[in-house]
Order: sequence, then structure tokens, then C-alpha cells
Amino acid sequence: MEKRAYVHGYSEREAERLGDQARTLTELLHHDTRYPAGSRVLEAGCGTGAQTVILARNSPDATITSLDISPDSIRRAEERVRAEGIANVTFRTGDLFSLPFAPGSFDHVFVCFVLEHLADPKGALAALRPFIKPGGTITVIEGDHGSAYFHPESAAADAAIRCLVDLQREAGGNALIGRELYPLLASAGYTGVNVSPRMVYVDASRPDLVEGFTKQTFTAMVEGVRDTVLARAMMDVKDWERGIADLYQTCGPDGVFCYTFFKATGKVPE
Amino acid sequence: MEKRAYVHGYSEREAERLGDQARTLTELLHHDTRYPAGSRVLEAGCGTGAQTVILARNSPDATITSLDISPDSIRRAEERVRAEGIANVTFRTGDLFSLPFAPGSFDHVFVCFVLEHLADPKGALAALRPFIKPGGTITVIEGDHGSAYFHPESAAADAAIRCLVDLQREAGGNALIGRELYPLLASAGYTGVNVSPRMVYVDASRPDLVEGFTKQTFTAMVEGVRDTVLARAMMDVKDWERGIADLYQTCGPDGVFCYTFFKATGKVPE
Repeated sequence: MEKRAYVHGYSEREAERLGDQARTLTELLHHDTRYPAGSRVLEAGCGTGAQTVILARNSPDATITSLDISPDSIRRAEERVRAEGIANVTFRTGDLFSLPFAPGSFDHVFVCFVLEHLADPKGALAALRPFIKPGGTITVIEGDHGSAYFHPESAAADAAIRCLVDLQREAGGNALIGRELYPLLASAGYTGVNVSPRMVYVDASRPDLVEGFTKQTFTAMVEGVRDTVLARAMMDVKDWERGIADLYQTCGPDGVFCYTFFKATGKVPE
Repeated sequence: MEKRAYVHGYSEREAERLGDQARTLTELLHHDTRYPAGSRVLEAGCGTGAQTVILARNSPDATITSLDISPDSIRRAEERVRAEGIANVTFRTGDLFSLPFAPGSFDHVFVCFVLEHLADPKGALAALRPFIKPGGTITVIEGDHGSAYFHPESAAADAAIRCLVDLQREAGGNALIGRELYPLLASAGYTGVNVSPRMVYVDASRPDLVEGFTKQTFTAMVEGVRDTVLARAMMDVKDWERGIADLYQTCGPDGVFCYTFFKATGKVPE
């Protein structure tokens, strides 16, 4: 994993946001990832452990190794996992482009919300492959900010979201990577690649998602780049505030918000 | 239904396109619409009968009345239904804003790819309501062209799609109506409104959808407005052709295409 600025920053609010996001989306994204007893699983890019907790709970008899390039994130992930009383996870600091393991060390690899931050996502997938034993699998989950659309429509909200996409691109990442998972995995040498889109559809009849996804996950993430956007005059303050207000408008009784995550699996040939 | 120019036109190719679309999408959109024996169902806005055939087959013991404002469409729908040997459908020419039936004549109403063409979709839904008996249901299916995104990205393809959206808007319709079904049905007086998005995800591992959806349904629909777009200089011919070529590019081995239909149901209070 290259060392670049993490577009969302490392603040307390960001840790909270990741926690909220994980809880709201757990069922949608993770319900069908269960690893058998005794299997060795690498979580590549665990961050502060938001997904680690879910992964470990869904596969209590698998042995999970969670790796991240940031020692600070690893420390927080360890604290979170210990606080939850989870015992089947080991943590390692390391770079996923030069893993500190022997080839074929794992039965399965799990990569969630990581490729979006990398300049060479195909290279990352190819770098992970030798560490999966033949017949093993990789599972990748990513969002795609270009899949966000809503009612009422708003050019200002579209522009605010575009700022996030542009900042992530400048930092070397790609906030539109979800749609690319099939060609990325196929070209990195995985077989039997299957992509399953997971759409989050939110209207006023689903108040938990209005709060947990539209407000606390997506809109909070956009609001998180406010200072950078304004300091760099990517939008003027009036348009920015209009865009954010319009995102909150999609949380009203007539509002609708749509976003799609992509979950892909692939195999390493026997 | 107001008498306005139907944005897709009434050519043979359009009839074929609607036929292809219906076959490819049948399972995704219609598998969960089955009406009980003896129930009276109104299909409001049947067009040339592409959905009528599916509706009648899925509910062979229901009595279906299919209505459209265009006598020519009704004639073609009748031919299609007769050719399929279907006997539980009766056709009527008429306007859904002033239905030629007694109030409470139907147990269920079905409206598919119709609201997108109307200047007053909420008014249409409200106009249908008195004809559904208390406790009956309405089912509405619409697309949303703003839900189309793809890999590789292309500004020219986005512009070509935007032409279709603009033309439909000028004709009094709304090609982005799918996302609005919840507030439309709720504000038209239906209760228990439930919206179920049906995403079409297409990559190279799904050749039937590449052919049947990305090429023959979506791209063919965009290509259908070529003459109007060029005659009115909404795009220049080079950009247009680039946009269409880029849509075909999403059908290649590295291409991905995404589109979402929305299916909504609501009830008339007892």
C-alpha cells in the first residue's frame, strides 16, 4: 500500500463515522462472508478495525490476520477488537505490496474500502495473489460515489460530491472504483470473478437508513472535506452550504437517496 | 394520459426494442407480480403490449384489462397477445385521467414505463386510485436514466444520455422518475408504499445482458434520438458518435454497465 494522504483524515469523527457506517451496512455487505473453521484469513488494509470486528464475529472459528500500513490505525483496531472480547484476530503493521508472510499463507483474503485509496489497485490485487493458496478466494468490497443520486436533484450537491471524488483522485485514489471491480480482479489473474452490487435505497419509510446512511455516513463523509474544499476554493462557501443543505433535503419526507457498493469474489486457480 | 409526442417514436425498431427489453428484464422486474385467480387487474398504459404478455402469463387466472390512449398501440398489443394465444386480456382505448370504468372496478392496477411520459405523474396516480377497490393495490415500474453509469467513464456518453433526458423533459416527461416513486405514491394517497430497486449490473461474464440490455435496450434507446439531437444541434455529430462508440465500449471485455429500475407497490386504504 502506498503511503499517501488518506482523504478522509484520521480524526475522532472519522473513526465514529466508520463505526456508524459499519453497523448500518453490516448486514447488506457482510452477511454472505463466512469462512470455515480453521481457515486462515488475511484482512488486507484493516484501518481502525471497523470491518475486522464484523469479519471476526461472522467467522469465529477462522484465524484472522489483519494488516494495515498505519501503526496508529493498527493500535486503534487492536483496542476495538479487544474491547469487543474477540480473540481470533492477530494484527500486523505492513505494506500490502510487500507482505511480511510466506507465499500461500492464507486460504482467503478480504479487502474492504482499501482499493479506492490506492494508485495501483490492480497491482495491489496481483501482489496479494501469491499469498492465497491455490483454490483460495479473494473478497473485495468498494463503494462508488458516482452511484449516488437522489431526490430532489441538486447541482450544488452533485458539485460537493464531485469535490470528494476530485480530492480522492488527487490523493492517488479513485472514489468511482466500485464499478471497476470485475475488470480489476479478472486482469489481476483471478478466475470465476463474480460481482454483486449492493444498493442502499433510502426513503422516508426507512428512518434507520436515513439517519445511519444518508446523514451519518454519506453526508458526514462529504462534510468531512469542507475545510479543504473552501481553503482551496474548489467551491465557494455559499454553493458548498447549499450542496450540504440539499443533501439533508434528501432526508426529508419526500426525499430519496441511492448509493451502491460492489462486492466481488474471485478464485486463485488450483 | 395526455396526448404528447412519445419520445421514443412508434417505429418498427422501437417495437422490437420494447420486445427485447421485455424478454431480458422479465425475470428481474416481473417475477414477483402474480395476481390471484378471479382478480380484476387494470394495466394502465399498455403501449404495444410488451408487458401485457408477461402480466397475462404470470397471472393466467386473473382478468386483465389493458388500456392505452393510442389506438394504433392497442391494435398492435392485441395482435401480439392473440399471436401468443393469451385469452385473459381485454383491450380498451382510453385516457387514464378519465377512465371509462365505474369506480372500484379493479382489485389491482399495474403501471409500467408510463409515468415517465406524463407531465403530471402524481395526478395520474391520484386519478387511478378511485378505480381500485378498498384494500386493492397499485404496482408501478419505472426506469431512471440518471442511474446509468459505466466503465470506462465517458463525458460524451454522459452527454448523449443527457440529450435523451432533456428531450423527454421537453415532451413533458421525466426520464429520472424512478427515484421519485416513493414520494409520488405516498402523496397520491396510497398507503404502505414499498419501493424495491432492481439494478441491472452488466459485465463481460454476463454476455446475455451485454447483448440484451446494454446494447439492444439501453444503447439502442439512446441511438433512437440521434436524428433529433443532430437536427437540433444538441450535440455535434463527432461528439454524438463518440458518445455512442463509448457506450459500445462498455460492452467490451473490460466494460461494465449499471442501470436501476424501481418497482413500487402501494395500497388503497380499506
